[in-house]
Amino acid sequence: MVNGDRPHVVILGGGFGGLYCTRALADAQVRITLVDKRNHHLFQPLLYQVATAALNPADIAQPIRAIVRKQPNVEVLMADVIKIDADHRRVLFSDGDALSYDYLVVATGATHSYFGHDEWQSVAPGLKTIEDALEIRKRILFAFEEAERHHDPLAQRAWLTFVVVGGGPTGVEMAGAIAEIAFQTLKRDFRRIDPTQARVLLLEGTPHILGTYPEILRRKAAEQLVKLGVDVRTDARVTHIAERGVTVDMPTGAQHIEARTVVWGAGVAASPLARTLGVPLDRAGRVLVTPTLNAPGHERVFVIGDLAAVKQKSGALVPGVAPAAMQEGKYVAQAIVDLVHEKPIFGHPFEYFDKGSLATIGRKKAIADLPGHIRLWGFLAWMAWLFIHVLFLIGFRNRILVLIEWTWAYATWQRGSRLITGTVAHEGPHTEVSTAPRAPVSSSAISPPS
Amino acid sequence: MVNGDRPHVVILGGGFGGLYCTRALADAQVRITLVDKRNHHLFQPLLYQVATAALNPADIAQPIRAIVRKQPNVEVLMADVIKIDADHRRVLFSDGDALSYDYLVVATGATHSYFGHDEWQSVAPGLKTIEDALEIRKRILFAFEEAERHHDPLAQRAWLTFVVVGGGPTGVEMAGAIAEIAFQTLKRDFRRIDPTQARVLLLEGTPHILGTYPEILRRKAAEQLVKLGVDVRTDARVTHIAERGVTVDMPTGAQHIEARTVVWGAGVAASPLARTLGVPLDRAGRVLVTPTLNAPGHERVFVIGDLAAVKQKSGALVPGVAPAAMQEGKYVAQAIVDLVHEKPIFGHPFEYFDKGSLATIGRKKAIADLPGHIRLWGFLAWMAWLFIHVLFLIGFRNRILVLIEWTWAYATWQRGSRLITGTVAHEGPHTEVSTAPRAPVSSSAISPPS
Repeated sequence: MVNGDRPHVVILGGGFGGLYCTRALADAQVRITLVDKRNHHLFQPLLYQVATAALNPADIAQPIRAIVRKQPNVEVLMADVIKIDADHRRVLFSDGDALSYDYLVVATGATHSYFGHDEWQSVAPGLKTIEDALEIRKRILFAFEEAERHHDPLAQRAWLTFVVVGGGPTGVEMAGAIAEIAFQTLKRDFRRIDPTQARVLLLEGTPHILGTYPEILRRKAAEQLVKLGVDVRTDARVTHIAERGVTVDMPTGAQHIEARTVVWGAGVAASPLARTLGVPLDRAGRVLVTPTLNAPGHERVFVIGDLAAVKQKSGALVPGVAPAAMQEGKYVAQAIVDLVHEKPIFGHPFEYFDKGSLATIGRKKAIADLPGHIRLWGFLAWMAWLFIHVLFLIGFRNRILVLIEWTWAYATWQRGSRLITGTVAHEGPHTEVSTAPRAPVSSSAISPPS
Repeated sequence: MVNGDRPHVVILGGGFGGLYCTRALADAQVRITLVDKRNHHLFQPLLYQVATAALNPADIAQPIRAIVRKQPNVEVLMADVIKIDADHRRVLFSDGDALSYDYLVVATGATHSYFGHDEWQSVAPGLKTIEDALEIRKRILFAFEEAERHHDPLAQRAWLTFVVVGGGPTGVEMAGAIAEIAFQTLKRDFRRIDPTQARVLLLEGTPHILGTYPEILRRKAAEQLVKLGVDVRTDARVTHIAERGVTVDMPTGAQHIEARTVVWGAGVAASPLARTLGVPLDRAGRVLVTPTLNAPGHERVFVIGDLAAVKQKSGALVPGVAPAAMQEGKYVAQAIVDLVHEKPIFGHPFEYFDKGSLATIGRKKAIADLPGHIRLWGFLAWMAWLFIHVLFLIGFRNRILVLIEWTWAYATWQRGSRLITGTVAHEGPHTEVSTAPRAPVSSSAISPPS
């Protein structure tokens, strides 16, 4: 191989961080191996649209091989890394194979955390992978089908109650989208039940949803959710989740909510791979990286994206968002080039450039916190959100298809991917067993820390 | 309910037969319950395009509820019928519920048959449902990934060998599409293996592929397959399928083909529901219906689509294709209206109008056997195939999306849905266990007769 003598850069994870790092190394005199457990890069900010039947999986996912096809210094490996052996400069795969590196970039991201309640996972799936999204889509659509089959009004009500746990961006998006499905998409599709009688609850443990946004936008977001028909409960801490519903601690006391469909949008935990590095981690399992994004004590190992806890000058952490991962990926690519050319990198620590944040709530409903204290909500914020997300969707074709799906959805209130696929057990209306939790959630890209 | 006094028509199955029957009853003074195990109607003629990563599941599937939304005399039930109790005019569900009917239309179709070798199912999945298609897609794409990971040339070769069993239309379409994936789509995506070195074998037990077509078209189809790089073997009877490959009886003797990916396109068996009717069935399990498509002895029970063995005047059976099911559905709707109005139906037996048949092989490659002895192949046949399939795709939106996908695929040779989703276990390159066959094929709409 002509690249054989060049330094070998191994990049773990084909998310935003890993991919942008790979691309930024296109002209570098290195050979790159990009390793991912999946064959596809996922545009995670739109994953909730797959979970809510608006987009197809392939609209937001592209094969990693196809993305880097024209970059000759990259080899892509679909494989499962279980350990980083920094002492011997190699990573170990689940099948016993090993891969040596000269430079390592760890960008394996994060998964859901159930805060020690892993038993909730089967009843309240989170949203990190395509499989998660299809599982949630199946449960939401199937709940309406089950409600239609039941004659008992209490059972119907439980099947028509949807609980979203966690008032962060994912929870807000999910709650808004479920409300739109019930109150618009399906409203004329059933004969016995009235989908507009569904209840969609958004439970947030702290006093505010979207806690990282300024107060005015938090309030606007809550207003827009209420307008969509979402029942927003703050200061509502979930203490128990089971097949039949959710128990919540609220200022007014404990309450049990009968619900057959629960979606988890609350906790995030770093990929367990971080622990195999043997360096200090923060409470969420992220690596406390140096200002140059190194794993402490490892000049040739970089950690980026959701797996890295990166302190800004202000003292705050860089948020776990796609633009941050992209910027970190590019920074690390330059750092590796500098190291290869034996230039010092320490004079130039990573700085995060905040381009603002956006959260969408529903049709013509969103909030945007942009640089220069520009704060938008409603239609304008939604247009900004649309524009930016289509712009960043990797792959020209996907952009066009997503635009068509959205235009169609906007014009008709319909959703393009209303399919219930995968195993659905049919339970009798009078049995005790819930239909929802059957199989454990499909394997995530990264398994949660045990 | 205003419809309460009207005769109750229960239609089992939301495929082409059931759906066209439902639609044809739109103005009839009946109330209809359309029952399907799935929430979606599937455009089965294009299912192989999902299996070969060209189309999204949602491109060829529509929620049944959405299709009949505007037909007020229809109620849709997502439920699993396990028995027809014709004596008491009712159908029984898996959960113990029952549903009474005045008229019953059974249109539950067919599934794969492994000719008594059900143990082949896990190693050689067939293609009937969306889940089947996603399973096959996963296996095909994953095989290339595994080949890239292996250093042993023999293992690489086994992973790069694809066997399609059965030279009917599905087998021909699958073989052609796999060849295009290997020789065009993926040809520049790997660094260690050369996907164009893949072998795609199409095995047919009889002397001819596409046996129902005239000789000239059979020959043209075989020529076009060979041009695509498919290794077509006729008179090749599969005697054994296991994780490591296929054993074939050929005129030259028995041969073992090392292959990690096998697709089953050979046998079809009728839905097992037919057996609960207690009427004579043919060898494939189909109901030997009367000229008015009744189950013999049951004036109020009709059987249509792939589940019915319908004799034509010529003595030949009506083929198991979508247009036949549609025509039968419409005929039965009229018969039910006649019965409701106490008119005789027996003066007017069902007649199948053959609009011709088409089979596609690949890009610009197809065959068409049209009325008036018009026989096309190559580009013209392919254009006819394209036109007819887009025309019949139910749902305006799907037509546009499919056209875009196809245009894009045509222009770039790329495929839009190259995602490996679902559980994929990573096996070591040197272990004996194959990565392909683990879990049994996802539940089919109808389970094969045991």
